[in-house]
Amino acid sequence: MDLQDVGQAVQMAGIVAFAVTAVLAVAPQNVSLFTACVMGIITAVGGGTMRDVIVGVPVFWAADQAYIWVATGASFIAFWTHKLLTSRAIFRLMLYLDGFGAALFTVQATAKVWNLGFGVPVAPVILGIVTAIGGGLVRDVLAGRPTLLMNQEFYAVPVLIGSTLFVVLMTLFPGAETLCAMVCISVTFALRAAAIHWGLGFPDWLTTRTPPKGRA
Amino acid sequence: MDLQDVGQAVQMAGIVAFAVTAVLAVAPQNVSLFTACVMGIITAVGGGTMRDVIVGVPVFWAADQAYIWVATGASFIAFWTHKLLTSRAIFRLMLYLDGFGAALFTVQATAKVWNLGFGVPVAPVILGIVTAIGGGLVRDVLAGRPTLLMNQEFYAVPVLIGSTLFVVLMTLFPGAETLCAMVCISVTFALRAAAIHWGLGFPDWLTTRTPPKGRA
Amino acid sequence: MDLQDVGQAVQMAGIVAFAVTAVLAVAPQNVSLFTACVMGIITAVGGGTMRDVIVGVPVFWAADQAYIWVATGASFIAFWTHKLLTSRAIFRLMLYLDGFGAALFTVQATAKVWNLGFGVPVAPVILGIVTAIGGGLVRDVLAGRPTLLMNQEFYAVPVLIGSTLFVVLMTLFPGAETLCAMVCISVTFALRAAAIHWGLGFPDWLTTRTPPKGRA
Repeated sequence: MDLQDVGQAVQMAGIVAFAVTAVLAVAPQNVSLFTACVMGIITAVGGGTMRDVIVGVPVFWAADQAYIWVATGASFIAFWTHKLLTSRAIFRLMLYLDGFGAALFTVQATAKVWNLGFGVPVAPVILGIVTAIGGGLVRDVLAGRPTLLMNQEFYAVPVLIGSTLFVVLMTLFPGAETLCAMVCISVTFALRAAAIHWGLGFPDWLTTRTPPKGRA
Repeated sequence: MDLQDVGQAVQMAGIVAFAVTAVLAVAPQNVSLFTACVMGIITAVGGGTMRDVIVGVPVFWAADQAYIWVATGASFIAFWTHKLLTSRAIFRLMLYLDGFGAALFTVQATAKVWNLGFGVPVAPVILGIVTAIGGGLVRDVLAGRPTLLMNQEFYAVPVLIGSTLFVVLMTLFPGAETLCAMVCISVTFALRAAAIHWGLGFPDWLTTRTPPKGRA
Repeated sequence: MDLQDVGQAVQMAGIVAFAVTAVLAVAPQNVSLFTACVMGIITAVGGGTMRDVIVGVPVFWAADQAYIWVATGASFIAFWTHKLLTSRAIFRLMLYLDGFGAALFTVQATAKVWNLGFGVPVAPVILGIVTAIGGGLVRDVLAGRPTLLMNQEFYAVPVLIGSTLFVVLMTLFPGAETLCAMVCISVTFALRAAAIHWGLGFPDWLTTRTPPKGRA
């Protein structure tokens, strides 16, 4: 089985989660319906677009335009309902869905680049991370928000662990792609869910928190 | 006739307008001659570069370097004359020229991607928008200015309408590319000109203006 | 001799310098170990990635993954030692090393694009600049810092002069690539070193410093 065949429904759930959380993220800054949809689409397909451009394969949404339609539809609905989506319960649900989307996209992207034999083993890991967080980074830059790289929350670290684990498992068990993928998606999502649930982030000693006291 | 053959003079007018308005946009932030030219070039050719990279064709300015020379020359002249260009009349003229450039680039880009058969019908529309506003977005991000996505002015919406209309017309009248293109450029420019003239923007009900009142 | 063969050690010194100065640049903003490494890698290989994507050749770090490992290692060490690296002497040394890296990458990139015959003579110059400053621009945007385009320091101008000089020399002396490259690296570095040593920047008359006084 090719990982690219993983159920459309599951993939589209990831697209929806990314688009909806994008609209919720920028809504407090007063954006138009147009901007909400642009931000939703960029967040949902931006990272995968960077991956495909760097690898040099046709961008995935040109071959299967359903990604764009689903992202647009989800953004559209999120725009009209965003005032309802801010209740704590729904906001939390969205965070978990977004984490699931990140887990799914990471492992799918790592598998895609791995199967292309592109820059193995480093490039699959890097492009797994790019796919999962690239769209969100562009969204935040365009919206003038601090990017997730500038806070200490565990968002990208589960992604790094998941893509690295996939490369390790595929090296050890080259015939078991589907199983490896399921394990890695589960691990990545579990780590992200734990980070959401317990508010995990980097401890001070793993940050540059104490400002440098040099004379420069 | 191939739309890519549309008069050089007209195309170059669009390049000039994009470069000049870019220099005028960043001039109040105190920039050097070098930065003014970089911003002018990025604004003029950045969107088309993204389009070509995503589609996977050679970037247009590598084949025809006149685009770079014209953008550089226009930026150079705009740098030395920007204090004269701030009179209301000239500034207005520049806005209209910029709107004309956006209309032209949108339809040209949509036509280019359409003729390549790339991701029809969604990709031509998306890449038409990317070509028209991509360079300006990069300029604003590099200059630390709010991007046009964060205000409610009608800039990108005429572009969206123009590229969508082109795809619709080409589907209905596949043999009439030149006529379709002229109609779409006219419509796009007329909408943008109306937005400039009457200061049109999104009404409140099409924005997230009322801040969310949820508990999150 | 192919310029791509220039001693690995020299190339890696440039990578190290870019990664270390990136970590030092973002450290005062309180970043995690993960973010420090991401910023180091992006700064070290981001510009070259843009160049390869625009030219349409495989990205250089997919073929030779040592670039990523060295950038990661250098960022890692810089993270743990950044409080020691702020003494004025070491900070200055890093600035010079960074200038050397910029000089090296500029000329290498210009030579690579020149030898591919891509958009000669304009594209080699533009992509030489993109390679030298592109990664740093992305780093600053992701970190929410003003980009180097918005100050008046001579950083990109030596790069422009070096890449232009290379194109001029290669046109005059097509057989002497190695010699031309050495001359251009030396000139670029000398100009940058002079800018660091004497704090050179654009004089007021080459900036838009006086705010426009028009009526607009």
